[in-house]
Amino acid sequence: MPDFTVTPWHVEGDIDYDKLTRQFGTQKITEQLHQRIAQVAGEDHFMLKRGVFFSHREMDRVLEQYQNGEKFFLYTGRGPSGNTHIGHLVPWVFAKWLQDRFGANMYFQITDDEKFYSKHDMTLEDTARYALENALDFIALGFDPKKTRIIINTRNIRTLYPIAAQIAKRINFSNTKATFGFTGETNIGMIFYTALQSAPCFIEDGPVLIPLGVDQDPHFRLTRDIAPKIKKHKPALIHNMMIPGLEGPGGKMSASDSSNTIYTTDTPDMVKKKINKYAFSGGQPDVAEHRRLGGNPDIDVSYQYLRIFFEPDDGKLESIYTDYKSGKMLTGELKQILIEKINSFFQTHQKKREEARDKIQEFLYEDR
Amino acid sequence: MPDFTVTPWHVEGDIDYDKLTRQFGTQKITEQLHQRIAQVAGEDHFMLKRGVFFSHREMDRVLEQYQNGEKFFLYTGRGPSGNTHIGHLVPWVFAKWLQDRFGANMYFQITDDEKFYSKHDMTLEDTARYALENALDFIALGFDPKKTRIIINTRNIRTLYPIAAQIAKRINFSNTKATFGFTGETNIGMIFYTALQSAPCFIEDGPVLIPLGVDQDPHFRLTRDIAPKIKKHKPALIHNMMIPGLEGPGGKMSASDSSNTIYTTDTPDMVKKKINKYAFSGGQPDVAEHRRLGGNPDIDVSYQYLRIFFEPDDGKLESIYTDYKSGKMLTGELKQILIEKINSFFQTHQKKREEARDKIQEFLYEDR
Repeated sequence: MPDFTVTPWHVEGDIDYDKLTRQFGTQKITEQLHQRIAQVAGEDHFMLKRGVFFSHREMDRVLEQYQNGEKFFLYTGRGPSGNTHIGHLVPWVFAKWLQDRFGANMYFQITDDEKFYSKHDMTLEDTARYALENALDFIALGFDPKKTRIIINTRNIRTLYPIAAQIAKRINFSNTKATFGFTGETNIGMIFYTALQSAPCFIEDGPVLIPLGVDQDPHFRLTRDIAPKIKKHKPALIHNMMIPGLEGPGGKMSASDSSNTIYTTDTPDMVKKKINKYAFSGGQPDVAEHRRLGGNPDIDVSYQYLRIFFEPDDGKLESIYTDYKSGKMLTGELKQILIEKINSFFQTHQKKREEARDKIQEFLYEDR
Repeated sequence: MPDFTVTPWHVEGDIDYDKLTRQFGTQKITEQLHQRIAQVAGEDHFMLKRGVFFSHREMDRVLEQYQNGEKFFLYTGRGPSGNTHIGHLVPWVFAKWLQDRFGANMYFQITDDEKFYSKHDMTLEDTARYALENALDFIALGFDPKKTRIIINTRNIRTLYPIAAQIAKRINFSNTKATFGFTGETNIGMIFYTALQSAPCFIEDGPVLIPLGVDQDPHFRLTRDIAPKIKKHKPALIHNMMIPGLEGPGGKMSASDSSNTIYTTDTPDMVKKKINKYAFSGGQPDVAEHRRLGGNPDIDVSYQYLRIFFEPDDGKLESIYTDYKSGKMLTGELKQILIEKINSFFQTHQKKREEARDKIQEFLYEDR
């Protein structure tokens, strides 16, 4: 029995990221690479500094190409199985930063077909509805409408399918069995699907950089094997860790488990209740003991959310860490900081999200 | 070792059609059903009378629906791996008759993706080129432009894919293994492809009748299992036998073997040379022996082509049969009859085929 599982459709257990990196065959982001990214970008990013983005494939190569005048484009995506939650925003916020710093085009793929194939009880109408809702969150983050296109698989299949066919011809069932653990019971939509997730890698001729959750890496392992055979650039990747659910380590936040998840459409009151009720705490059972022994920010979900996303200021984050660990800050106080941070972020985000309804047409990719 | 093999991608050996019917689980067309088709259609067709169309699935059911006022639509297709040959025309000519007699809409699917997946050395550009060439032959047969649409898979994927997805979700790898003999080595394009061949069955809401070569039946066995699960009509089928290659029984005419095949674009001289040189003869080694023993029309390819396609007149066909069997007609004379029949047919066909270049836009299916 492995102590953790990470596949594009299932994440479980307490992930050992060193082990995962070896298992997947990716590279850890070294301090040297981190500094180089910051140097070429012209500024650092807290998600790099804090190891939220921790692993990559050929990030160094695309930086070198960039410095030699060859621009990369960006590609990431979303499987629309439910509403957007804060975990989804992590790679998108980082992708937005990459777009700004490198002037890169961005393709955002919404895989309505994949979620239809992988979720027994979802219809294509369900996933199409979530596709549009999820797109609003993406647009709300401020991507440049001139440089950003949203691809919805069933809608843009005419562009995707001929590219996917080139890939599909070079992947056999045994490859998908080895990569995803597919069996005789796997439906043929799922089996083919990886070719469609590969397709946007080749939607432009130049090199591509994909910021994404590490659970999606297996798709691109296949793509990278095939790219040279079809005389294309291998996609480069930069991976973020899985964002824990409210109830703590042992999985990623899931769009389909509402008590374990904070959605971008939650009201201030819902955020408050969910954090107070469900957020796994690194504190002691009672106040006296907490004051005496201190809390453990490294396992505390509220602290982790601040570290991963909601407190970009290193100084502030450090004093929260110190105060919580020393027992000076109580769990309720820590939660209160997070609740305020989330609700302040949501106040702006939800406004922009509604404004995005009028902008969505501008962002949708049009098949030629 | 089976003595013959019939799959959508490989036909080999001397096919025992009784055995094949049992193996595939289809129904033979009984004399009673033949008469009923002729009665409802208002006339008989020589391909039914002569058993060229020999098997079906629920042909009786669509006739009954038709008589109760529920019209069926027609669907057939072509895998564009090369130029059209006379074997391809068999189901199309019959389909044209069905369209005329039953006032049915017709969808003609050209599977450029399938041939790309199944032919190692073909590109999507190759199959797209043949797709258009093959479409000309189809149009030349006189289908009603108001009631006929040509679907090209990569071109019309936006219509096909969402329908195919409904089917693909309900077929697993084991199903394709059992139906087509797929293995771990089969590419994922091929594995998914059967869902795309199913899709036109559901392009209209009513019942569908598919006239086609019996080698394509396995695809629709899967479709028929799934149709009720997605609350759709099971497609009905009517199957023609495989048309032998020039060199005789032991396979079907293949678009990729030019010496064994008569293409619709062959010149009169090419037709003459191919028939005289390659057409497998049921005659005796020399004239004297032929006069004495007579020929065997049942294995003679020239006679079979007349029977299957080029001599609709029963009286004329019967006297050719008798004369050849008795030794009165020599092989050279029989071949001469066929050559004249083919060239006469081609004279008109090739003219209409060129005229079809200007009509093709009118026939192409437009995605909504």
